[in-house]
Amino acid sequence: MQKVCVYAFTEPNHGSDASSLNTTARKVPGGWILNGQKRWPANSSFADVFVILACNISNNQINGFIVNGGAPGLKISKIENKMSLRVVQNCDILLVDVFVPDEDRLPGANSFQDQVMALSVARVMVAWISIGRRGRASASHAYICRYLGERRQFGAPLAAFQLNQEKLVRMLGNIQAMWLLGWRLCKLHDSGGTMTAGQASLGKTYYKRWNRTHGSQSRHGRRWLWANGIVTDFHVGKAFCDMESICTYEGSYDVNALIVAREITGISSVRPASRL
Amino acid sequence: MQKVCVYAFTEPNHGSDASSLNTTARKVPGGWILNGQKRWPANSSFADVFVILACNISNNQINGFIVNGGAPGLKISKIENKMSLRVVQNCDILLVDVFVPDEDRLPGANSFQDQVMALSVARVMVAWISIGRRGRASASHAYICRYLGERRQFGAPLAAFQLNQEKLVRMLGNIQAMWLLGWRLCKLHDSGGTMTAGQASLGKTYYKRWNRTHGSQSRHGRRWLWANGIVTDFHVGKAFCDMESICTYEGSYDVNALIVAREITGISSVRPASRL
Amino acid sequence: MQKVCVYAFTEPNHGSDASSLNTTARKVPGGWILNGQKRWPANSSFADVFVILACNISNNQINGFIVNGGAPGLKISKIENKMSLRVVQNCDILLVDVFVPDEDRLPGANSFQDQVMALSVARVMVAWISIGRRGRASASHAYICRYLGERRQFGAPLAAFQLNQEKLVRMLGNIQAMWLLGWRLCKLHDSGGTMTAGQASLGKTYYKRWNRTHGSQSRHGRRWLWANGIVTDFHVGKAFCDMESICTYEGSYDVNALIVAREITGISSVRPASRL
Amino acid sequence: MQKVCVYAFTEPNHGSDASSLNTTARKVPGGWILNGQKRWPANSSFADVFVILACNISNNQINGFIVNGGAPGLKISKIENKMSLRVVQNCDILLVDVFVPDEDRLPGANSFQDQVMALSVARVMVAWISIGRRGRASASHAYICRYLGERRQFGAPLAAFQLNQEKLVRMLGNIQAMWLLGWRLCKLHDSGGTMTAGQASLGKTYYKRWNRTHGSQSRHGRRWLWANGIVTDFHVGKAFCDMESICTYEGSYDVNALIVAREITGISSVRPASRL
Repeated sequence: MQKVCVYAFTEPNHGSDASSLNTTARKVPGGWILNGQKRWPANSSFADVFVILACNISNNQINGFIVNGGAPGLKISKIENKMSLRVVQNCDILLVDVFVPDEDRLPGANSFQDQVMALSVARVMVAWISIGRRGRASASHAYICRYLGERRQFGAPLAAFQLNQEKLVRMLGNIQAMWLLGWRLCKLHDSGGTMTAGQASLGKTYYKRWNRTHGSQSRHGRRWLWANGIVTDFHVGKAFCDMESICTYEGSYDVNALIVAREITGISSVRPASRL
Repeated sequence: MQKVCVYAFTEPNHGSDASSLNTTARKVPGGWILNGQKRWPANSSFADVFVILACNISNNQINGFIVNGGAPGLKISKIENKMSLRVVQNCDILLVDVFVPDEDRLPGANSFQDQVMALSVARVMVAWISIGRRGRASASHAYICRYLGERRQFGAPLAAFQLNQEKLVRMLGNIQAMWLLGWRLCKLHDSGGTMTAGQASLGKTYYKRWNRTHGSQSRHGRRWLWANGIVTDFHVGKAFCDMESICTYEGSYDVNALIVAREITGISSVRPASRL
Repeated sequence: MQKVCVYAFTEPNHGSDASSLNTTARKVPGGWILNGQKRWPANSSFADVFVILACNISNNQINGFIVNGGAPGLKISKIENKMSLRVVQNCDILLVDVFVPDEDRLPGANSFQDQVMALSVARVMVAWISIGRRGRASASHAYICRYLGERRQFGAPLAAFQLNQEKLVRMLGNIQAMWLLGWRLCKLHDSGGTMTAGQASLGKTYYKRWNRTHGSQSRHGRRWLWANGIVTDFHVGKAFCDMESICTYEGSYDVNALIVAREITGISSVRPASRL
Repeated sequence: MQKVCVYAFTEPNHGSDASSLNTTARKVPGGWILNGQKRWPANSSFADVFVILACNISNNQINGFIVNGGAPGLKISKIENKMSLRVVQNCDILLVDVFVPDEDRLPGANSFQDQVMALSVARVMVAWISIGRRGRASASHAYICRYLGERRQFGAPLAAFQLNQEKLVRMLGNIQAMWLLGWRLCKLHDSGGTMTAGQASLGKTYYKRWNRTHGSQSRHGRRWLWANGIVTDFHVGKAFCDMESICTYEGSYDVNALIVAREITGISSVRPASRL
């Protein structure tokens, strides 16, 4: 826990379509030369080490490389004006002829396929972030129950109104399903790695739906505080904004859904009808 | 399994508000006289035995009584023109001075509270009906996956279209959550009866939402078969209609939600502001 | 108004993909020979005249032909076991070497494109069916308002409960938007035919969403009558089932949405990635 | 347009329940003494004039008073840490024995009822804010159409994917309905003031639903930009946050819905069952 390490995959022009990345790795005597851009890697502004995914131009496969924070040719710029997860310092990374010695090429990262399990595990972790951490699903529900029990309007606590009660129940059902689904994914993963990429993605699509659409903890919470909900002092406004990041990283809802569907149907529909 | 027994609680004017029922039981020497009406009990047209819930007029408590199928004063009329669960024969029951001997009063049914666990267990069973039986959630999903894989439009199986794939995934996530929630409720119930009325109702509200609103198996299934979906030969049209009954019996969504909310908040909002 | 005429386009294997129909028209001296199948045309069992759309095998274009009810080679079978719009007699139509004289070929129906305006106008009519006819949106809302005002539970009319009030409002907002959108489409159509196919389809997608998903009159109505809602005597159960047909004919939600999107983006995504 | 005026109604403990406000007005020779707190009034930090709504303790009615920016006893504190509508300076206002001369009491503001039309008109204005201003519904749709047409993934513009096309259409339908509903409300208001409070509130509930739940422009927009959507440079992230304020001020969704329902049913369910 003494080094901060950054995993850099996404690029300005390759988010969902990560496998087509443009950063290149060219073999030179004793090592590799990296060129390209990365966007979004968290905490890059103070990281010690970067894992850079790049396309090996000799075989068109995705390889992994370790780059030190101060490497010549590496330029880091913090992304400003975020309205979500402001505590995290996301950055743009520019690599201009960055040299990586042979011993710093990652041995197990030889293709896009090698990244899939890393992404799957990350998707399960993102699912848990939305359930349990401070300010997210469970904490938001607890906070809101207390707020609705204390805040009074029309001579009664807000918790006494039918319309509020129904929403509290919807939230609780969602949270319960999230816990069970997260628990199930961890069981699958632990029992000898039988969790498939589709199962992880199915989990992620569900966390998204529950967090943002149906009885979403953060969304309902934001509204239940009414005007107070837009002030971050009241926590849920912050959770509401943060959830937008949590639901976006490690793959959008649509991309994850299409990964699941490919497992169910045996047909990939990720690419559109024609290369326009 | 040689006798068909009917549990008769609901009345024409007391559905959600079952505890205020109007059927009365009056003590007479050697037994009781029952008067009133029941509506909906399934299979009453060929039942051997009825359990009738009635208000004991001496103490205003709900008691249970066993009435034989051919008892004098008992009149059964089948409810016609159902568009849902047509295989089940629901009936109207009229009781005019039906005599029940003392030994046929149910010993454990002395109050509305005594019915609550029966209702809770029934709610869990209803949840499982919607998951697993032929033509419902899991079966509908399997049927539709096959149909979408076989039916072709625009030169490709329907399963190859993004819009269809996303819906298949939504359905699968719902079904997975339904299995987990149902499993969890059974575990709670088996482990010494720690399942509360609120937990059972929370399960039921979720089955309803999943079955009818979000990525509902039967609803999406009905539509995916397009015009064929309105012909009951194709199963899912029938499942779609049947689900309306399954989501209604053992308490509407709203009533179950308010039961859960009472457990969460400690406040009942079942009754409205004023007795208008 | 003395002849019943049927418009026969859809086939067993060509619903959404209507333009690829399989029914053929072959030129012979003095007329045409039609072969193929149609499915769903309403009221075919007692129709006087059929307009059959068929593929002219000489140029692969869709042409229109008038066939009389009793024509040799024409066979009509009623589709049984419908759970929706049971009053309408939909049929399967089989054409085996049906002869059509030259003068009964429709002069203005020479291509799929010639059918598009007919379909667009039909889509607007379907929209209005869902708003205004007996048992549909407006009528359902009126019926339910009355029912909720009269039916009492827990000592008050159902109309006094917050959860019911919110749903009544949602329905009313949807209905109001449906009226305004329908009115706007008619204005566009009347003012010199400036209504585009996309505008008509946008209307249809909205009627579907409003009728079945968001605050749907028939769906909420069905539920508000609880158990009574599954008996067709109470009207809304019937409206609920009928709505499934109304939302399906003249193009599914997805097909209409993709027609609109093609107008917005200039890109067609109707066909999937590859002809699998 | 040379004076900035603030309308101060809401209080820390009276948002939805505005009519029960706690700020008092006490008659003294030559004028009135105001005491209490207000929360949220926009731009109070640089306002010239305040309209303060207060309870006249002699008759318990809500009266209106004009207070100048520099009045002794008036204290303004800016609310910090907003995540929404950050351009607007909302404030807490403290009034300690603020003197208002008789001539500065508003003549037409003698009761809560006198505020209702002001609130109704404000609700229609809020509706239009969400439709038309820069960064909101219409502008977001235009921005997103362009972004999806330009941004490419998997070898095609994002606008070519079915899942994106369907969402663009959903947004467009919502926006069209919003325009029509807003236009209709203005017509009603202009034609001799026949717009009722319920009609205005119905409009507001619909703008909220459309903006935040169904095919919401700002929400879909936020997501369509994926990670870029959380950076305010890309506009829609800002619109997404701002929409939370717009949907909250002039009454929450629930309060507006219950105002409409009161007009439809003749029954108020704003207050809960019992004063707990």
